Amino acid sequence: MKILLIGASGMIGRAVSHALSAGHDLITASRSSGDLHVDISDPASLRALFAKTGRVDAIISAAGDGVMAPLATMSDDDFNRTVDTQMKGQLNVLRLGLSAVAPGGSITLTSGVAAQNPMPSTSAIAASCAAIEAFTRTAATEVETVRLNVVSPIFVKESMELFGLPTDGGLSAADTAKSYLAAVAGDMHGQILATPDFA
Amino acid sequence: MKILLIGASGMIGRAVSHALSAGHDLITASRSSGDLHVDISDPASLRALFAKTGRVDAIISAAGDGVMAPLATMSDDDFNRTVDTQMKGQLNVLRLGLSAVAPGGSITLTSGVAAQNPMPSTSAIAASCAAIEAFTRTAATEVETVRLNVVSPIFVKESMELFGLPTDGGLSAADTAKSYLAAVAGDMHGQILATPDFA
Repeated sequence: MKILLIGASGMIGRAVSHALSAGHDLITASRSSGDLHVDISDPASLRALFAKTGRVDAIISAAGDGVMAPLATMSDDDFNRTVDTQMKGQLNVLRLGLSAVAPGGSITLTSGVAAQNPMPSTSAIAASCAAIEAFTRTAATEVETVRLNVVSPIFVKESMELFGLPTDGGLSAADTAKSYLAAVAGDMHGQILATPDFA
Repeated sequence: MKILLIGASGMIGRAVSHALSAGHDLITASRSSGDLHVDISDPASLRALFAKTGRVDAIISAAGDGVMAPLATMSDDDFNRTVDTQMKGQLNVLRLGLSAVAPGGSITLTSGVAAQNPMPSTSAIAASCAAIEAFTRTAATEVETVRLNVVSPIFVKESMELFGLPTDGGLSAADTAKSYLAAVAGDMHGQILATPDFA
């Protein structure tokens, strides 16, 4: 399969890239690394990306730049970065990517547990994740030729280690990647995939 | 109570305004009508509004400018109008309005049934509504002095009549307004209020 992976340089993106590179024609894209560069918050940048890749069988977005901050200290910039990049960026990948995917293909976005689990300092991230899930579920009622799904990862162990947090209850990046492989290879459509279910 | 009602000129806003005007010191704000003008997609415009109103006991937002469109024909402008005004605008009302509300007061936003009920042509609106609900639920885990809630209206009969649609299963604007009154007068915090429950 010819697969475009956006956000290939992050903790999850690298694991997905590693898992897909052997068996597929993988094109990686990120803001500043990978085969191609893209700013998903900018529709023109995404359209230019799809013009370069041509028709693909799957698009995976593991991109997202959400800012954790309590409302009391969240700046306009913190808020805009989360909403414009993590949220609008991924919604752009779906709405603009549709015409770049071959019939029978798929688009898989990334949300997170904040969508359903209110936790302090995650209000903008929660909004983004919930928007990504609702947008995808709703889009799936219109689109029949391309499967649309969202992976909702629980905490990734390697990321928690980086932040000096306990890793209990987290999932390794390699196990997290399995949900993306399932979304690409499976037949689900309009689904939110919880990563422990596919590890 | 001194209450600021943003989006007072819409179908729901007018009914809320009518219900509140007798017993309260009501300030109405809209993009181009009401006591004060505001563009909620612009943080500077909102900050100027709160500077004019001074401290209030409650803020209600019945604002929102979501565009119904299938993904296949949704333009960048359709998408941005929904996300920037309905979604980011209402999130702005909450995050910037917090410091304008007196302790013990409340902020009430508006979402819609599209958040939980995937329907064709509502992908951007569904994303907005889901974001508003997740943002408010999450913010409520941080904020103790101001109650934060969302009214999720089912279809408003008068709006359905305007569009020439059957009104079965809808709720009158006056009955819809009762949820906002409940959110202002009650003790709920971090809740999503379904309008039939308060009609």
